[in-house]
Amino acid sequence: MVETAIRTRAAQAATSLSAADLRGRLVSGALRAAELTEAYLARIAEAEPGVQAWAWLDGDHAMEQARALDRYRESGRAPGPLHGLPVGIKDIIDTAKIPTSNGCALDAGRVPSHDAFVVERLKAAGAIVMGKTVTTELAFMHPGKTRNPHNPAHTPGGSSSGSAAAVAAGMVPLAIGTQTGGSVIRPAAFCGVTGYKPSFGAIPRRGILPQSPFLDTVGVFAADPRSAALIAEALFGHDEADPATRPAPHPRLFETACAKPPVLPTFAFVRPPGWKEEATDDTKEAFAELVAALGEQVFEVELPRVFNGAATERLRINLAEMARCYHRYGRDGADHLSSETLEALSQGNATLARDYLAALDWKPVLNAALGEIFERCDAILCPAAPGAAPEGLATTGSAVFNGLWTFCGTPAVTVPILTAANGLPMGVQLVGRIDDDARLLRTAQWLHDWAEG
Amino acid sequence: MVETAIRTRAAQAATSLSAADLRGRLVSGALRAAELTEAYLARIAEAEPGVQAWAWLDGDHAMEQARALDRYRESGRAPGPLHGLPVGIKDIIDTAKIPTSNGCALDAGRVPSHDAFVVERLKAAGAIVMGKTVTTELAFMHPGKTRNPHNPAHTPGGSSSGSAAAVAAGMVPLAIGTQTGGSVIRPAAFCGVTGYKPSFGAIPRRGILPQSPFLDTVGVFAADPRSAALIAEALFGHDEADPATRPAPHPRLFETACAKPPVLPTFAFVRPPGWKEEATDDTKEAFAELVAALGEQVFEVELPRVFNGAATERLRINLAEMARCYHRYGRDGADHLSSETLEALSQGNATLARDYLAALDWKPVLNAALGEIFERCDAILCPAAPGAAPEGLATTGSAVFNGLWTFCGTPAVTVPILTAANGLPMGVQLVGRIDDDARLLRTAQWLHDWAEG
Repeated sequence: MVETAIRTRAAQAATSLSAADLRGRLVSGALRAAELTEAYLARIAEAEPGVQAWAWLDGDHAMEQARALDRYRESGRAPGPLHGLPVGIKDIIDTAKIPTSNGCALDAGRVPSHDAFVVERLKAAGAIVMGKTVTTELAFMHPGKTRNPHNPAHTPGGSSSGSAAAVAAGMVPLAIGTQTGGSVIRPAAFCGVTGYKPSFGAIPRRGILPQSPFLDTVGVFAADPRSAALIAEALFGHDEADPATRPAPHPRLFETACAKPPVLPTFAFVRPPGWKEEATDDTKEAFAELVAALGEQVFEVELPRVFNGAATERLRINLAEMARCYHRYGRDGADHLSSETLEALSQGNATLARDYLAALDWKPVLNAALGEIFERCDAILCPAAPGAAPEGLATTGSAVFNGLWTFCGTPAVTVPILTAANGLPMGVQLVGRIDDDARLLRTAQWLHDWAEG
Repeated sequence: MVETAIRTRAAQAATSLSAADLRGRLVSGALRAAELTEAYLARIAEAEPGVQAWAWLDGDHAMEQARALDRYRESGRAPGPLHGLPVGIKDIIDTAKIPTSNGCALDAGRVPSHDAFVVERLKAAGAIVMGKTVTTELAFMHPGKTRNPHNPAHTPGGSSSGSAAAVAAGMVPLAIGTQTGGSVIRPAAFCGVTGYKPSFGAIPRRGILPQSPFLDTVGVFAADPRSAALIAEALFGHDEADPATRPAPHPRLFETACAKPPVLPTFAFVRPPGWKEEATDDTKEAFAELVAALGEQVFEVELPRVFNGAATERLRINLAEMARCYHRYGRDGADHLSSETLEALSQGNATLARDYLAALDWKPVLNAALGEIFERCDAILCPAAPGAAPEGLATTGSAVFNGLWTFCGTPAVTVPILTAANGLPMGVQLVGRIDDDARLLRTAQWLHDWAEG
């Protein structure tokens, strides 16, 4: 009895550790998957009424997976890289036999027969499917029920609202989401966790609700960049069903993110389009301090002027492809959709093919313009959002500082190292060269450790 | 003097051989590249006034290349796979320092600084750039000056008009062109030569005027399928600048096309959409005879109904992408463009992105529907065109039997084994499974040999 109580307290304490730190204990058996999962479920029972991060949750199912993983490890077989780690999964990502409702009344009770590629990979790596996290309606702008764990009167950001909030509230050490505009980086920043959007095409999207195939990117949430690297490494790959993916050697994201950079990283501080009008005073002051503190490791650079039009062109692509991908929703269920979604479908439906095709051509131009900057730095440094999470739950905030990087397909990480005057967290966004994800994560982990002193 | 005269007569006789047959003589030195090129130039001098196949031709430049190749071989170095073979190049394919006018008054006198990927490959393989062949305006519908070598009152077909006519008139043993609708198979059939449109994505398109990147495919013209395989094999590859291409093992097209099929090939005779209304009596009779003659080697099959809409969807993609790709022409030079091109640009400009995107989604559906047919045959057999080359030079004829295969991305070969009542040639089109080009060429060579008895 005493030993059980001690182990339970230890497991409760463990929920405050990052996935990267939990990993060793789970693999060695010092911490059992069932104990850890039970502790997270206790935390969920406590926090969920206020946070509302989950669209679907079944504690018994989570415990069954955890016990099976403990038996697996105890049988002497080699544990996977995510052994025993509970993961929250955005509810636009298909899970076999588990409801996947896409945040949309029209899909309420929809139960897929197959797992998405990323869920197959999570299971194969020994992760526990903890439950499905709240998304905005069809991963677009209309908010779900989730609130910001730091202050329930504030938005958690979106569209991966539940994934960010669940990690921030300590309900799971890891979660996955998607970003078409700013749906990973923004909620991560608002909720004060690490969010990582890999290079476009790094993680296959089979089994995930497509909104805009030219932009849709799987991303992850964790306590720190190392832990984000740990889960992302399990998801990188090639799948014939996703033409954006290519066969490529598997990058060692986790090992690299854990390593010390060979020299101190250099950052290019960028004020992206929208900085003047939208960035809050909090953001402007915090970045002035940050840049000063980083000293010679940072230089300022202006984005080439071609970036001024990038947001418009990205939105054009997003809406045109969304009108195609969500054709069925608009046709059959207009009465059940929010005005935000309907307005977007209407705009997308009116887009001309020539304008859509012209917008696609911006991507290589933007990346060529970035090439020169990346020659001189390890990462671009810029805000993850205009400010801390805005008050109110009617919108999920602005993606103005995210969409351009989604458009470019460059990897981005937000690190929660700043705090606004009202005490809410703010994120520092680092952006790397496309397909140079491992270096970006190592740089982000360096910044994370530097900020902690 | 006597020896020279004998060699000249031998070279003149050689111009009636296929590239595959010439290859061995050129490599051994039995035939010198300069002798052969001179003989082809003599043939051009004779036939060009009537045929008008060339947009640019410089005999001295061709002879220089030929003599350089002779010196190269005589120095003991290994000749390339196309050593000494003159090739005609469609005038939308960039040739460094050689005018490339895209069949368009607006590009008259345009001289590219770089070779297209395919021209680089031709030169590396030891081929001779004989000259640039006439294309329709911007490789669309408005005819160029070329006439059918079998009867100058008839169209040669298009848009690769000059390439087909030059091979048919014995001016070159090989030529390259492109197909977005039916621009390789149709002119090959009308001119009575072999035309081969490889699988979509097999040959990189860097340096070729893009009209519709989802459809544009490089193709080749030759006397027989073996020779088409010989040149195509030199062009297959991967190029980062063409996202439709992928790294893949190089197929042995020529070796396979020269080999005897392991068992007698089986054909699926298909009457594609448009057969009833557009196929001429000549075509209907010839195919009835052909099917009867092939006996148990052929079975009839109906294309799935989804193919009935394929032509409309293919055209939608073609016009929408053309409006984007030719934006500059429409904006700056409306006065210099034909009504056919202007009307197409106007339609393309009005296409909605959602309709364009919906059309793209047809491709996998069509290919899935073909899968079952290809399980049971070596190739689909159907007409290359509704009939022989129509009289008149105002249009290049109908691509109704070509566009659906371009849309699917399946490889297609036309073999000139039929003759219409008026004596003009007609082609039998064979279509293979995507990326099964080598087998298709072997099957086509079998049909070619079978027809010759």
